[in-house]
Amino acid sequence: MWKLDAQDIEDLATGAAILGTGGGGDPYLGKLMALSVLEKGMEIEVVSPLDVPDDALIIPSAAMGTPTVLIEKISSGQEIVHAFERLRKFFGQEVYATMPMEAGGVNSITPLTVGARSGIPIVDADGMGRAFPELQMTTFNVYGVSATPMTLVDERGNVVFLDAVDSIWGEKLARSVTIRFGGTAWIALYAMKGSDVKRAGIPHTLTLAKDIGSAIREARAVKADPVDSILDITGGYRLFEGKIVDVARRTVAGFARGEAKFEGLNDYSKDHLKVQFQNENLVAIKNEEVVCSVPDLISILDMDTGLPITTEYLRYGFRVVVIGMPSPQMWRTPEALKVIGPKYFGYDIDYIPIEERMRGG
Amino acid sequence: MWKLDAQDIEDLATGAAILGTGGGGDPYLGKLMALSVLEKGMEIEVVSPLDVPDDALIIPSAAMGTPTVLIEKISSGQEIVHAFERLRKFFGQEVYATMPMEAGGVNSITPLTVGARSGIPIVDADGMGRAFPELQMTTFNVYGVSATPMTLVDERGNVVFLDAVDSIWGEKLARSVTIRFGGTAWIALYAMKGSDVKRAGIPHTLTLAKDIGSAIREARAVKADPVDSILDITGGYRLFEGKIVDVARRTVAGFARGEAKFEGLNDYSKDHLKVQFQNENLVAIKNEEVVCSVPDLISILDMDTGLPITTEYLRYGFRVVVIGMPSPQMWRTPEALKVIGPKYFGYDIDYIPIEERMRGG
Repeated sequence: MWKLDAQDIEDLATGAAILGTGGGGDPYLGKLMALSVLEKGMEIEVVSPLDVPDDALIIPSAAMGTPTVLIEKISSGQEIVHAFERLRKFFGQEVYATMPMEAGGVNSITPLTVGARSGIPIVDADGMGRAFPELQMTTFNVYGVSATPMTLVDERGNVVFLDAVDSIWGEKLARSVTIRFGGTAWIALYAMKGSDVKRAGIPHTLTLAKDIGSAIREARAVKADPVDSILDITGGYRLFEGKIVDVARRTVAGFARGEAKFEGLNDYSKDHLKVQFQNENLVAIKNEEVVCSVPDLISILDMDTGLPITTEYLRYGFRVVVIGMPSPQMWRTPEALKVIGPKYFGYDIDYIPIEERMRGG
Repeated sequence: MWKLDAQDIEDLATGAAILGTGGGGDPYLGKLMALSVLEKGMEIEVVSPLDVPDDALIIPSAAMGTPTVLIEKISSGQEIVHAFERLRKFFGQEVYATMPMEAGGVNSITPLTVGARSGIPIVDADGMGRAFPELQMTTFNVYGVSATPMTLVDERGNVVFLDAVDSIWGEKLARSVTIRFGGTAWIALYAMKGSDVKRAGIPHTLTLAKDIGSAIREARAVKADPVDSILDITGGYRLFEGKIVDVARRTVAGFARGEAKFEGLNDYSKDHLKVQFQNENLVAIKNEEVVCSVPDLISILDMDTGLPITTEYLRYGFRVVVIGMPSPQMWRTPEALKVIGPKYFGYDIDYIPIEERMRGG
């Protein structure tokens, strides 16, 4: 076990935004919640998944919906602890730790508040290794852990408990409740044993996010290129450098779908890139050829700072570097690709790992 | 305690349709469920609210949404028992009886199945004495019993548990879940003690519905006017006799709102009546003067059979008798009228009891 300090949390937030692949909610909010508990003298302790006893009960915690609407209330963190405590009460046994469900975006950090306030550690693992838009899109679900029983609470004190027939019904019901709450729910779900964490979780993803964040910070301190540092750590690739020439967006069933187009900075270059997104960046197409697709990670970074730009902030004229990063191996099995592969998102593309695509190019 | 036989259930269904005041769901579905448990040899036993011990736990049960969509599944009744059992498990103590929440429409009868299958009696009382469209519109809520904790289940096996900050939030969340289920939920809610039943329940409403039904049946058997029998039992008034000349409907936020217009059968008569409805009939206006308004009951009866016509079946040319019946006294207090008075439903009308309006006319 090890403790996180304020610098670690800053780095984790930066790295989580990269793993957010354009979506996942702004880690800034989670960061303020976590820094607030540190300021109150509480401790944030992380445990390796390898050190979790097989029989221990782990309850992940997260925000669902659009955490931005709760910006005035974020310093408290009471709601997410409330969701967690209600699910803990349901099991009626000791909880060993909490855990992120999603290492990309705000939900990499929200469990830190739960752990600190409840005096338990946070497992250094998650169920996505990135951000995804729906609850069933986890390695937990693919490898046999159910999203429900699950609790959702709001800032008013309403509590909803779901016991759904499967994780997809868990998502459907939780989404309706979240909308009814006004757009945001604080949730506890995917309760599992330590042995499940080792089998169905993606290990060391909090550390990965923190390492990405600290590498960017250190590169910027010595005026080195932060993108090189990110690619070193993630085994990723530079897909394109250029400027945004067009962004098209529409909101379909609550998801921001759209496409951004990029051209080279050099006007003589004929290369161009398209990134298609649905909350998260899902497919990158260079000169009409797919160069990266979900579940591999696509992030769009500001060329000067190396910091990621979320899909909602993409604007004409931004100078960016688009990078692709290999997904965890657990996402590359046929059973996993059924749940999060390009075809699930409606793209008629066979998934080919980015390493193969890059060798082919 | 007394037992209900098949004839009682037929009568109860007829009377519940009258108390449904045009809405409340078709009691026919509940009747088939109840007859089915009788055929299986189970017993339906009713207990007077006066005989319920003060400390006993009572859990009402009901259907929410549009029970018609479940017509193929009604013979089982498993879902509503499932909802009831899950809430019973939450309390972890013996349940003395179940009870209707709503004496009008299908929900007068759905609890009979729960009682028979669970081997407990049904309390002869409810929280509406008629039908109303929303969960918080009960004397239970007005007099201090909360709708939640509450369970909702669907035919797939999904279970949702709500612990809302008040009964209005219970309604909002339950409505979202019901829509997500596909339009129908089976629910258990308004758990209360025997002392609460005596204080906040409307007594003897199952018996009232059954008596109305048997009076109609007996009148028809001897070719007497069934409407007279209904008015005798309910203390009601004939508001109008005539034919339907216009029906306007629109669906607003899931509710069927509209107005039916009636003219006399005699072409020389200049009298006319309008009934405004929102799922249930809410206001009757004769020659531009209000003659009856919610919470008093307005039912539109077929002139020949005395059987009620629901708002969705109102059609041009039907020959009808429109009757008004006094609501239970518990609905006539200022605190109750805030929750179910004409102003709550958007009508700029002061509530005046139908007895006073009739004396004035």
